[in-house]
Amino acid sequence: MVGKHRQPGNIVTRRDLIREGEIDIQMEYFYDVPGSMPGTLRIPSDALPPIIGLIDYNEQKAVRLQLGTPEECAPHLDSESVSWLDVKGLGSEDVLQRLGQVFDLHPLVLEDVVNVPQRPKVEEYDDQLLIIARMVTPTESGSSFHQEQVSLILGRHYLLTVQEEPEFDCFGAVRDRIRTAKGIIRKRGADYLAYSLLDSIIDGFFPILEIYGEDIEELEDAVVESPTHQTLERIHTLRRELLVLRRAVWPMRDTINSLIRDGSDLISEDVRIYLRDCYDHTVQVLDMVETYRELASSLMDVYLSSVNNKMNEIMKVLTVISTIFIPLTFIVGIYGMNFDREKSPFNMPELDWYWGYPLCWVLMIVIALSLIAYFKRKGWFENVS
Amino acid sequence: MVGKHRQPGNIVTRRDLIREGEIDIQMEYFYDVPGSMPGTLRIPSDALPPIIGLIDYNEQKAVRLQLGTPEECAPHLDSESVSWLDVKGLGSEDVLQRLGQVFDLHPLVLEDVVNVPQRPKVEEYDDQLLIIARMVTPTESGSSFHQEQVSLILGRHYLLTVQEEPEFDCFGAVRDRIRTAKGIIRKRGADYLAYSLLDSIIDGFFPILEIYGEDIEELEDAVVESPTHQTLERIHTLRRELLVLRRAVWPMRDTINSLIRDGSDLISEDVRIYLRDCYDHTVQVLDMVETYRELASSLMDVYLSSVNNKMNEIMKVLTVISTIFIPLTFIVGIYGMNFDREKSPFNMPELDWYWGYPLCWVLMIVIALSLIAYFKRKGWFENVS
Amino acid sequence: MVGKHRQPGNIVTRRDLIREGEIDIQMEYFYDVPGSMPGTLRIPSDALPPIIGLIDYNEQKAVRLQLGTPEECAPHLDSESVSWLDVKGLGSEDVLQRLGQVFDLHPLVLEDVVNVPQRPKVEEYDDQLLIIARMVTPTESGSSFHQEQVSLILGRHYLLTVQEEPEFDCFGAVRDRIRTAKGIIRKRGADYLAYSLLDSIIDGFFPILEIYGEDIEELEDAVVESPTHQTLERIHTLRRELLVLRRAVWPMRDTINSLIRDGSDLISEDVRIYLRDCYDHTVQVLDMVETYRELASSLMDVYLSSVNNKMNEIMKVLTVISTIFIPLTFIVGIYGMNFDREKSPFNMPELDWYWGYPLCWVLMIVIALSLIAYFKRKGWFENVS
Amino acid sequence: MVGKHRQPGNIVTRRDLIREGEIDIQMEYFYDVPGSMPGTLRIPSDALPPIIGLIDYNEQKAVRLQLGTPEECAPHLDSESVSWLDVKGLGSEDVLQRLGQVFDLHPLVLEDVVNVPQRPKVEEYDDQLLIIARMVTPTESGSSFHQEQVSLILGRHYLLTVQEEPEFDCFGAVRDRIRTAKGIIRKRGADYLAYSLLDSIIDGFFPILEIYGEDIEELEDAVVESPTHQTLERIHTLRRELLVLRRAVWPMRDTINSLIRDGSDLISEDVRIYLRDCYDHTVQVLDMVETYRELASSLMDVYLSSVNNKMNEIMKVLTVISTIFIPLTFIVGIYGMNFDREKSPFNMPELDWYWGYPLCWVLMIVIALSLIAYFKRKGWFENVS
Amino acid sequence: MVGKHRQPGNIVTRRDLIREGEIDIQMEYFYDVPGSMPGTLRIPSDALPPIIGLIDYNEQKAVRLQLGTPEECAPHLDSESVSWLDVKGLGSEDVLQRLGQVFDLHPLVLEDVVNVPQRPKVEEYDDQLLIIARMVTPTESGSSFHQEQVSLILGRHYLLTVQEEPEFDCFGAVRDRIRTAKGIIRKRGADYLAYSLLDSIIDGFFPILEIYGEDIEELEDAVVESPTHQTLERIHTLRRELLVLRRAVWPMRDTINSLIRDGSDLISEDVRIYLRDCYDHTVQVLDMVETYRELASSLMDVYLSSVNNKMNEIMKVLTVISTIFIPLTFIVGIYGMNFDREKSPFNMPELDWYWGYPLCWVLMIVIALSLIAYFKRKGWFENVS
Ligand SMILES: [Mg+2]
Ligand SMILES: [Mg+2]
Ligand SMILES: [Mg+2]
Ligand SMILES: [Mg+2]
Ligand SMILES: [Mg+2]
Ligand SMILES: [Mg+2]
Ligand SMILES: [Mg+2]
Ligand SMILES: [Mg+2]
Ligand SMILES: [Mg+2]
Ligand SMILES: [Mg+2]
Ligand SMILES: [Mg+2]
Ligand SMILES: [Mg+2]
Ligand SMILES: [Mg+2]
Ligand SMILES: [Mg+2]
Ligand SMILES: [Mg+2]
Ligand SMILES: [Mg+2]
Ligand SMILES: [Mg+2]
Ligand SMILES: [Mg+2]
Ligand SMILES: [Mg+2]
Ligand SMILES: [Mg+2]
Ligand SMILES: [Mg+2]
Ligand SMILES: [Mg+2]
Ligand SMILES: [Mg+2]
Ligand SMILES: [Mg+2]
Ligand SMILES: [Mg+2]
Ligand SMILES: [Mg+2]
Ligand SMILES: [Mg+2]
Ligand SMILES: [Mg+2]
Ligand SMILES: [Mg+2]
Ligand SMILES: [Mg+2]
Ligand SMILES: [Mg+2]
Repeated sequence: MVGKHRQPGNIVTRRDLIREGEIDIQMEYFYDVPGSMPGTLRIPSDALPPIIGLIDYNEQKAVRLQLGTPEECAPHLDSESVSWLDVKGLGSEDVLQRLGQVFDLHPLVLEDVVNVPQRPKVEEYDDQLLIIARMVTPTESGSSFHQEQVSLILGRHYLLTVQEEPEFDCFGAVRDRIRTAKGIIRKRGADYLAYSLLDSIIDGFFPILEIYGEDIEELEDAVVESPTHQTLERIHTLRRELLVLRRAVWPMRDTINSLIRDGSDLISEDVRIYLRDCYDHTVQVLDMVETYRELASSLMDVYLSSVNNKMNEIMKVLTVISTIFIPLTFIVGIYGMNFDREKSPFNMPELDWYWGYPLCWVLMIVIALSLIAYFKRKGWFENVS
Repeated sequence: MVGKHRQPGNIVTRRDLIREGEIDIQMEYFYDVPGSMPGTLRIPSDALPPIIGLIDYNEQKAVRLQLGTPEECAPHLDSESVSWLDVKGLGSEDVLQRLGQVFDLHPLVLEDVVNVPQRPKVEEYDDQLLIIARMVTPTESGSSFHQEQVSLILGRHYLLTVQEEPEFDCFGAVRDRIRTAKGIIRKRGADYLAYSLLDSIIDGFFPILEIYGEDIEELEDAVVESPTHQTLERIHTLRRELLVLRRAVWPMRDTINSLIRDGSDLISEDVRIYLRDCYDHTVQVLDMVETYRELASSLMDVYLSSVNNKMNEIMKVLTVISTIFIPLTFIVGIYGMNFDREKSPFNMPELDWYWGYPLCWVLMIVIALSLIAYFKRKGWFENVS
Repeated sequence: MVGKHRQPGNIVTRRDLIREGEIDIQMEYFYDVPGSMPGTLRIPSDALPPIIGLIDYNEQKAVRLQLGTPEECAPHLDSESVSWLDVKGLGSEDVLQRLGQVFDLHPLVLEDVVNVPQRPKVEEYDDQLLIIARMVTPTESGSSFHQEQVSLILGRHYLLTVQEEPEFDCFGAVRDRIRTAKGIIRKRGADYLAYSLLDSIIDGFFPILEIYGEDIEELEDAVVESPTHQTLERIHTLRRELLVLRRAVWPMRDTINSLIRDGSDLISEDVRIYLRDCYDHTVQVLDMVETYRELASSLMDVYLSSVNNKMNEIMKVLTVISTIFIPLTFIVGIYGMNFDREKSPFNMPELDWYWGYPLCWVLMIVIALSLIAYFKRKGWFENVS
Repeated sequence: MVGKHRQPGNIVTRRDLIREGEIDIQMEYFYDVPGSMPGTLRIPSDALPPIIGLIDYNEQKAVRLQLGTPEECAPHLDSESVSWLDVKGLGSEDVLQRLGQVFDLHPLVLEDVVNVPQRPKVEEYDDQLLIIARMVTPTESGSSFHQEQVSLILGRHYLLTVQEEPEFDCFGAVRDRIRTAKGIIRKRGADYLAYSLLDSIIDGFFPILEIYGEDIEELEDAVVESPTHQTLERIHTLRRELLVLRRAVWPMRDTINSLIRDGSDLISEDVRIYLRDCYDHTVQVLDMVETYRELASSLMDVYLSSVNNKMNEIMKVLTVISTIFIPLTFIVGIYGMNFDREKSPFNMPELDWYWGYPLCWVLMIVIALSLIAYFKRKGWFENVS
Repeated sequence: MVGKHRQPGNIVTRRDLIREGEIDIQMEYFYDVPGSMPGTLRIPSDALPPIIGLIDYNEQKAVRLQLGTPEECAPHLDSESVSWLDVKGLGSEDVLQRLGQVFDLHPLVLEDVVNVPQRPKVEEYDDQLLIIARMVTPTESGSSFHQEQVSLILGRHYLLTVQEEPEFDCFGAVRDRIRTAKGIIRKRGADYLAYSLLDSIIDGFFPILEIYGEDIEELEDAVVESPTHQTLERIHTLRRELLVLRRAVWPMRDTINSLIRDGSDLISEDVRIYLRDCYDHTVQVLDMVETYRELASSLMDVYLSSVNNKMNEIMKVLTVISTIFIPLTFIVGIYGMNFDREKSPFNMPELDWYWGYPLCWVLMIVIALSLIAYFKRKGWFENVS
């Protein structure tokens, strides 16, 4: 749960967000029915039908097409120009199987692409490289994040990318750079395109982390000033979500590192230098995630101490008032109301006053209201549960 | 303890399950009497007699036989077709010793197969590969899981598997694939069969973990809303059972990794690619176990804080009521009942009323009942121990 | 502290056991006076005189002798038969020095053998292998364990073992196997004998761990049902003793691993396979120790929560009773005893009863006794410190 | 937050310092808009315009110049003398781009230099070495620290350094050594100059750590003697800032290590020995950071215990006074004021005194004031929140 | 803080010891003014003037001399006999610089030797080996320890050792062995001498650790029986001092290991075997430090629980007494003193007694004193802060 658009008096808990469908943070990986055949595809019932887009470019020209079937892509694959086939949506087993045939994918590769989520990794096949990545994008409300799997299959002159959801991605800027021939992207091959997309994916983690950074700052103040149940729940949710991010980024780091170190000849020396930059950023993301995790841990300690301190204060008030009045009440119990009024005009003259009893009630009501006001100011009537 | 079929008002603790025999989570490994001879077999008194099944297949045909003695298997071992001998139950030393002779097993191999549980591992012998694996299957009630050891001995044209209990396994789908010649299993050797079984075993961990994932979600709500002793016990049991799962999966990962890396020539290059997929899944299982362990740890912190918060609230009620009434009672002690009623009609006229004393009792009973109702609503009469 | 023979009403703390001399868990290693000469032996004042036993065997025959001096062993060392010299007790510097001469031990080897305890390790010398191991044996009462160092010096045709204490060891079954020629031990060399002893030593850790496993189960119930000071002390002692076990087993694992990997030519290929089995068991012991350590850690958390919960419950009783009676007592303070009995027969008729005052005392005594009975049932009078 | 100039009665919290702009501890790394072109520079709006200084020296002479444009530097780069171009301030994209052209920097290098902060690292290019370092300098008030990135680009005969802020650096002493030809710096090449700057940067961490060391000592006393909310906040801030320091130093250690191990031929054997010294200091800084982190963790435990102890004490006072007076008040309730004064002169003669009632008030006021004084002395009226 | 000479009623805190100058545990390493020239020496103002002693020996003879200047040592350095120059005290830059010239030390070596403390390490130079070690010696009172740096420079036929303080070292026994030709030291070279000194240094850690072991046992009893603020402070100090020891021993282990593994030809094969023994001891020291650290951590948990338990007990007493008397006082409030004494002789006859009021006071005083005695016996009047 992240806090950009939250209002002070309007606290949103994680369960609220789940109810509203805003959060969708998967903790589990995909799994087959035990014993099922390798290569078995399982299409989620709510998956959207795949949209197949092709961008074919070289230094001279760049074409963008919307394809009806995977087979239309075939003629582009062998040409010298770079062909980027971007499939968004996993909603048709037929289309995905035919895609596998067009690209000549190993059944296990197709399984990893379709049966999401898988752990990020890189795998080398004869003349293809499979890269599984995890892409995060902020939600509209600025709280939490969406995540989806992006699979990249890199060939000699083509790149196939498969996304889970058509709605979100962070490749817009790369498409613009191809269209406008900005930078060197049009002069390079499919490996440079794969790098550019991975770089976008990694850079996409930073805005998410920035929101968590702000969230931690908010919590740092909250735990000291007004530690409530919501604070506690927010800290736990923070730890949970940082765990999810860490799980996404750790294998990404290994993935990019092995692209640099033992990468196949599909990746040129030149692009390796760019991947090194991408690797730096992955390490920086990890660094931030780990730092935030340690801060969240420390926040939990501070929260506990703060609650303890608050309780201490309450106990003090009770102790002070009780221990002052307990002996007094004892004395009053002994002598209180039986001093012989006839022996002396100083012995409890109040009892003879005309307004004595009503005045006594007034005094008591004033005391009671003052104490209630004091407790209210201290915030002891706020509901903590 | 996992929570699929639990009802809110019907909480089942781990000890209940142990009493009912539903849980059987071993923490200990098998051990010999110190100094006993290597190769000594020890048959548990409640072990069921072994059932010996043989499936012999090649691309053309597949035969399934129930064997009476291990020796009946001998003619199949040297034929080119793949022979899968599946022994279920460890209840006869004689049968197991003869099995050892038929397959020419090293005494230490036979010991590892029979004296369960052992730690998962792979060991290479002259023309055999011993693989010890741990198989988990969900219980009928959906809470907790069964676990048993499966030993695989892979030869050139045969695979021997030995299971602890005849009742459970997750190989049904593989047997079906052999029978129906679905996929490529009938076209491949014994190494592909071994892979298929290992893959089933690993895939079998996911449904168990899914239940734990739901359990954690339930606990996340429980610790905040109604932290009780049961919650605490469930968290501890969760940690204990995740520890058991981790202990099973860690060595499985190493086992499969060494099958891929330094595997003997009994495993073909082709099957290694499939084992890589299996390895991915093992890492994913581990990933989930570690994530759940961290969440369980965080849950314990949240539980402690929640209990603290509840106590805080109770203290507040006591403090507020006490500190309001303490000074009032003191004042009442001084003047309360001795105002001179003759001096003024305002001085305690209630004392002269006809129904004064009964009305006073009514007032007190109303106050007492209101407070009791308030505490009941707060849940303070629920038994926490 | 382990709990086999403990009775519920008869809790034994660690300090009791230390007083009774039952526990002897060393946390410290041996150390020299700084600057003392390498090879300086230091005999503890309470060490028992060494008993020297020799077993000389080959496939045909096995002889067992009690030797008076180390020198009597010399003629056996060069013969082809395996000579196992077992020295028990470190109580004579003279005997140990002469032993060193007979076996031609490096001064540092003799130091490691005599100045116990040392950390388990293996060291290769010209034609000898020094193995330092740690042996644990359960105490008679079944609580805690004895530990002592066993040093093995392996030569071409001989094995020298030196134990700290003559009373305990776990080599009885191996001696029987030599005597009765059971298994292959009589057909193999000194390396197989060394393996057999190491295997016995490792197998000896399992029964100890089993007792700790039971202890943890007991504690799991105790922390939830009746967390007392004794429970706390038992958890701390458990952690302490598991620490001692871990310290013994970790280097044993490295020791056996290096015997397998970089072992000298004193260990045959064949025996290496057996050592691999022994290594498995060491890893299993470690696995269990680490699991128990995590459970003990979790137990501490549960203990703290349980104590917190108990306190919560106490606070609730106080709060409920106080907050009900505080306003009532206030009202009573105002009107209680001054209703005008003459105005109405309903105004405190009890005050006129003949048995009024004694009845009032009876009422109060009944209330007090009921409350005391209630608290007793809750267990609040048990002494917790 | 560090404490040199703090006064006891004048506690400064971290938030105060942030408000005053004294603290500027970045937790985040720089990040691009996802998908932006590699090599895109982003100039912060408040960056100061770059100041370009050149020091050109060899054994005979040393010249110091202020340059107007990067291009003025070009003639110096190829000469045999060492040219140190020090650029301070990142406020002009134009100047930085031209700098890149003059030094022929890879676009990714320029990006790392300008888009701060980056993680410390070393990268080798054809005939250049890029070193990213993190420099810390104490604030004027002695609390907390400034940090900025220093990028070093080492060529054959030149060193380019780029700093974020013109105001602070710790290179003054190195400039003096060049000017006065003190030591061997004028006799060595650009690699020795790079070492000298890195050494200054590392040495700059020690004074910061010294202040944290004092802070920890202060906190050690504070947690035991007067644990307040401020103490808690200071411990959390301490942990946060040590985390920032650790994040800076860990990669610096790797950076310097890889300069020593796989350094290019731009670094001579001779300078490697000096870098080894620099590496030692980095390890020492890390050592101190880790030690302080452990102490801060332990401080949190001690804080919690101290607060607990204080509460204990308060509870004791309440318990002692309450439990003494509760039975007394009960007795007084029974007999208190109704002893028959006519039966005996000893029965409550005080009630007949002339000054009885006023004396009773005096007694009560004296008791109340004594208790208030006692509580004040105990510090129970200090505001803890 | 360690506890040999402490008396029960006479608790000494760490701050007392610091005041008395008994403790001097450095947490910081030496650091230069940033940018200062490599090789700059900084002499602490309170350093004592160096005392230079020479021991020159071979198998035939051993001479011990007190030298006035470093130069007097020069003729001994090239002779075949072993020359051990022992410099104690760092109080003269002139002497140390000349020492550097006589031994031809690299400026960085001299810096490490003089600018103490440095982290233990080994460094190889052309024909010299620099070993930095940390030596601990117990204080006279048996609490805490002194530490100082010892630098060893090993050449072909000489060994230079430099100590910080002349007062303490643990080399006495080695000097005796040289004088009396005990053992083989006179027959070996300078490498054996270096080993002997390192061995003394390592053995010097054991007595310190033994005292901490006793301290932990004391604390184990204290936390359970009488947990006070002092206990808490002692646990924190224990953790702090074990941290210091760990920081000293970890790099010592690496140092000795690299002497064994990649040692130069200045160390003979033969001495390497002795260094292996020394390495064992270093590992044992580390093992003990880590064990004690874990125990100290567990002690903190136990302390917290104990304090919690104590509080629980106090709450119970309050609750029991309050809840018994609260309803009774209510009843008394209703009827207490107004039973009509004329209606019955049983109605409060005490009020008519001649000694009624004084007897009532006696009763109350007896109750109050009994409660005070009870609380005193419980130890509730002991000052906890
Ligand atoms: Mg949030
Ligand atoms: Mg599958
Ligand atoms: Mg998408
Ligand atoms: Mg990037
Ligand atoms: Mg900030
Ligand atoms: Mg803040
Ligand atoms: Mg970069
Ligand atoms: Mg065995
Ligand atoms: Mg089964
Ligand atoms: Mg699978
Ligand atoms: Mg969920
Ligand atoms: Mg939830
Ligand atoms: Mg897969
Ligand atoms: Mg020694
Ligand atoms: Mg023995
Ligand atoms: Mg065994
Ligand atoms: Mg059990
Ligand atoms: Mg149980
Ligand atoms: Mg085995
Ligand atoms: Mg970028
Ligand atoms: Mg600057
Ligand atoms: Mg330095
Ligand atoms: Mg201090
Ligand atoms: Mg202090
Ligand atoms: Mg140095
Ligand atoms: Mg320096
Ligand atoms: Mg000294
Ligand atoms: Mg030693
Ligand atoms: Mg002890
Ligand atoms: Mg003890
Ligand atoms: Mg030794």
